[in-house]
Amino acid sequence: MRIGLDVGGTKTDALAIDESGVVTARARLATGWGSDAVVQTVLDAVAALTGEGGIDRASVRSVGIGMPGQVEPGTARVVHAVNLGVAELDLAAVVGPALGVPVRVENDVKAAALGAYVLHGGVGTTGYLNLGTGIAAGIVRGGELWRGARGTAGEVGHISVDPHGPLCRCGQFGCIEAFAGGGAIAERWARPGALPVRDVFDAADAGDPAAIALRSGLARGVAAAVRVLVLTADVDAVVLGGGVTALGDRLMADVSAELAASAAASPFMRSLHLEERVELLPAGSPAAALGAALIGDVRDTELDGAAALTSS
Amino acid sequence: MRIGLDVGGTKTDALAIDESGVVTARARLATGWGSDAVVQTVLDAVAALTGEGGIDRASVRSVGIGMPGQVEPGTARVVHAVNLGVAELDLAAVVGPALGVPVRVENDVKAAALGAYVLHGGVGTTGYLNLGTGIAAGIVRGGELWRGARGTAGEVGHISVDPHGPLCRCGQFGCIEAFAGGGAIAERWARPGALPVRDVFDAADAGDPAAIALRSGLARGVAAAVRVLVLTADVDAVVLGGGVTALGDRLMADVSAELAASAAASPFMRSLHLEERVELLPAGSPAAALGAALIGDVRDTELDGAAALTSS
Repeated sequence: MRIGLDVGGTKTDALAIDESGVVTARARLATGWGSDAVVQTVLDAVAALTGEGGIDRASVRSVGIGMPGQVEPGTARVVHAVNLGVAELDLAAVVGPALGVPVRVENDVKAAALGAYVLHGGVGTTGYLNLGTGIAAGIVRGGELWRGARGTAGEVGHISVDPHGPLCRCGQFGCIEAFAGGGAIAERWARPGALPVRDVFDAADAGDPAAIALRSGLARGVAAAVRVLVLTADVDAVVLGGGVTALGDRLMADVSAELAASAAASPFMRSLHLEERVELLPAGSPAAALGAALIGDVRDTELDGAAALTSS
Repeated sequence: MRIGLDVGGTKTDALAIDESGVVTARARLATGWGSDAVVQTVLDAVAALTGEGGIDRASVRSVGIGMPGQVEPGTARVVHAVNLGVAELDLAAVVGPALGVPVRVENDVKAAALGAYVLHGGVGTTGYLNLGTGIAAGIVRGGELWRGARGTAGEVGHISVDPHGPLCRCGQFGCIEAFAGGGAIAERWARPGALPVRDVFDAADAGDPAAIALRSGLARGVAAAVRVLVLTADVDAVVLGGGVTALGDRLMADVSAELAASAAASPFMRSLHLEERVELLPAGSPAAALGAALIGDVRDTELDGAAALTSS
């Protein structure tokens, strides 16, 4: 049995998969704030799976943890997990002894990319595009996560696609994230509300010009990221996930229209069939927790066998 | 002994490497026009290496050929090699029997990417950015060429980086290739001359405003492609090659200035150290022929061993 956790800014998603990759237990709980509370959340999540979840503690052979923030390559050290109030934390060193099994940590978007690859059928090359406060991607081919040289693989959010576009918090103008990041949209919308991107869509539906511009920028940014992933890494499919994808078809309709417009203008773009290659991760899909479970004790290159076996 | 050919629009570069990957013979000849003449060029190039080149014909165990145009995955069929007057040609089927050794064919940019990786030291992840009539890239990690799902990996030239930029021949506006492709620059310069990009640089040095704008667009396009390769695939280094790089330091100075400007504006871009990660393939470097020789009879995943052994 392998356990996977997706430790998010507000909630932690936990699951256990058996040797065939089938999900056998799942739990959700609130994430604590700060290093100590995050450690406690991890321990509580494992306890929930082995308690109410009915998983035999002795059968657990690894715990994989997906977290926002930078994970230093080859280590379990997380740095700059600002959404969790964690400046620096070596989770494996802290929770490993308490759990008594190997603990591995991965950036949450990379974990979700691996989970999305498996959920997408576990074949070929998949690009996972996370639409949350920021924009980032993960690329998986043949079950192997593309890690790159220095940890910036998939940072497509900071590719500028318009020198006259909005200023990005990174300092450049017209970054994909400045158009399509939930944080950037909320900042430019600048009105109170718990779900600012949804508010923007509602206001756009009601005819608000500022909201229409923001909504169209979001679609433009997502479409640009899709093109970057296909034209650089030639992924079979781009799977969209992350908080903003809760908008579902409302988001997809705009993104499809944007891709259709570039296909109409360009025979080359048309030949790529981008519209058919973009899909939404189903709502509530445990991609990041699943990917974390797989990362927990399997080397990336060994994932092929587990690829097609997962259900939820 | 393995032979590699780079069959270009005007010239064909041929070399032989020994079992350690050391270049032992080299020849250059004019490329014929049309399928029959291209086949003859290939036979002549091999004859030059085994004749004047002093290579024992019996020691040749494979021939790899890099060519412009699309090479169908897993085959030696080249289609749309417009610069060679070739609509469709199965080179292995035609020249294989005459040469009596296995013949493999690869797109010339992909072959050059593999050669550039080896020339760059044969470790880590290398992006090769070809600046010619068009713009295309190849990504090599651990000796393996990233092939992607459908043959468009590395087509970064058709990523739009400015919706108000020049119309690209692909139908989109502001593609990297519309800014930085030698063909697009020549078309917009629209004055006679055998080396239009060099003419643009000379005119820009003399203060011509149109030439200054074209030169700055070239640097902007190249810098954008470098950012795309680093932010998507996180390559250690971007090696620039192709005809336009004959401009050498004149080109590099502009590209470096462009990268420095974005580093000055953005702490995130600064953290990537892009200026230090870009380099020029040395003039006359046989990257594509070398890569073709390696592709000739070694499976991609077997290249690691050959990586550090090549000299010229």
